[in-house]
Amino acid sequence: MSNPTAAMLVIGDEILSGRTRDSNMHHLAQVLSARGIDLTEARVIGDDTEAIVTALNALRAAVTHVFTSGGIGPTHDDITADAVARAFGVGIDIRDDARAMLEAHYAGSGHAINAERLRMARIPDGATLIENPISGAPGFTIGNVHVMAGVPRIFEAMVQSVLPRLTGGRPLLSRSVEIRRPEGDISAPLREFAARHPELAIGSYPYLRDGLLGVNVVLRGPDAKALDQALAEMLRLFPDAVE
Amino acid sequence: MSNPTAAMLVIGDEILSGRTRDSNMHHLAQVLSARGIDLTEARVIGDDTEAIVTALNALRAAVTHVFTSGGIGPTHDDITADAVARAFGVGIDIRDDARAMLEAHYAGSGHAINAERLRMARIPDGATLIENPISGAPGFTIGNVHVMAGVPRIFEAMVQSVLPRLTGGRPLLSRSVEIRRPEGDISAPLREFAARHPELAIGSYPYLRDGLLGVNVVLRGPDAKALDQALAEMLRLFPDAVE
Repeated sequence: MSNPTAAMLVIGDEILSGRTRDSNMHHLAQVLSARGIDLTEARVIGDDTEAIVTALNALRAAVTHVFTSGGIGPTHDDITADAVARAFGVGIDIRDDARAMLEAHYAGSGHAINAERLRMARIPDGATLIENPISGAPGFTIGNVHVMAGVPRIFEAMVQSVLPRLTGGRPLLSRSVEIRRPEGDISAPLREFAARHPELAIGSYPYLRDGLLGVNVVLRGPDAKALDQALAEMLRLFPDAVE
Repeated sequence: MSNPTAAMLVIGDEILSGRTRDSNMHHLAQVLSARGIDLTEARVIGDDTEAIVTALNALRAAVTHVFTSGGIGPTHDDITADAVARAFGVGIDIRDDARAMLEAHYAGSGHAINAERLRMARIPDGATLIENPISGAPGFTIGNVHVMAGVPRIFEAMVQSVLPRLTGGRPLLSRSVEIRRPEGDISAPLREFAARHPELAIGSYPYLRDGLLGVNVVLRGPDAKALDQALAEMLRLFPDAVE
């Protein structure tokens, strides 16, 4: 049985303008790998309703789970919740349970709850809330789409709230070796090795360090024993490889 | 006149598995912003021919320029050049000028040019080469698609080779202020401010630092004088804002 699949949608002009470097995609990729959910695509788009609706509808039809980050705060450029409601063709309004989460958070914070903050309790009809232990305002799950905040620590906390609900698969295990030669030196035997091991995903990742090209070869598969055997074969094939 | 637009396509299983954190997207976003080319979307996909063809055809129809990174080396998992040829419906073969670039590079390197390395001289019909001053093997431009290496230093060098050929627009200038209060405190007056300044793109970027929420407000537009006036108004509106 194949693993569940996932896509990520990063929403935010600040990523596309180069002002901010996204870190949520890399975080999500790591935690999904560990859980046996295969991330097959990620997209970054701006704060634009049409773009969000189009991307969301394409992705949610293609994968088991879609994760979004960004655009669920209280300011004028936070349009994600409304765009998600539109993508699903449902209404959106302030919801009592989301409001209660905000009130509980602000009660202890010294900040007043106001009309602007209440915007963060606007949730598309039929969604389930995602807890936000950091700043109160919840994310939400609707259909197979999980809508989360863009601030990395809050995003990461929301991912922790969502993940236990999701069915995982067989995590891909990996073994890797480093060979301090350019890829072109090893690609013929590596190609044959890959042909002998169709059960593994074999990636060749070149790098440049101190002006010298080298390569990390990564073997991936669900079966630890098969990986260990393939790794031993790899080390015989490339005696200069280091684990 | 509006600026040219761009999209980026990052190709590589290693990004989606969480093994590697992409840095090319952030680099490209910054250099395009400075040149007045608006990056409107970025996608990350795996080493999969169908996925590359589909994404490439969607993106090249939507924007002025598409930039790809990854998958143009000599190993079995380097399938980008073939996928690009397929997306354009053209042939692909070893080309003399690309081969000459490789030979010139390897002549000085102590590494032999072999059949595997010659794979890197396979270029889709009708493409223009992109110089690679670091490791010899060229990228290429076909139609409005610029195909470049994934290793960051090589990607960045290829971007430097391509950019002078492209027509830029008016770079977006920006001014920003930091306000050490949660977004919900400032969003009502900020919403009115944004309504008074439709000529500017105004982004509100919350952060969490030492357990406290704050916000960076960024004003963007092509006109320095208009930005300076808006910034002055902003500082009157939020006396606790710091530039």
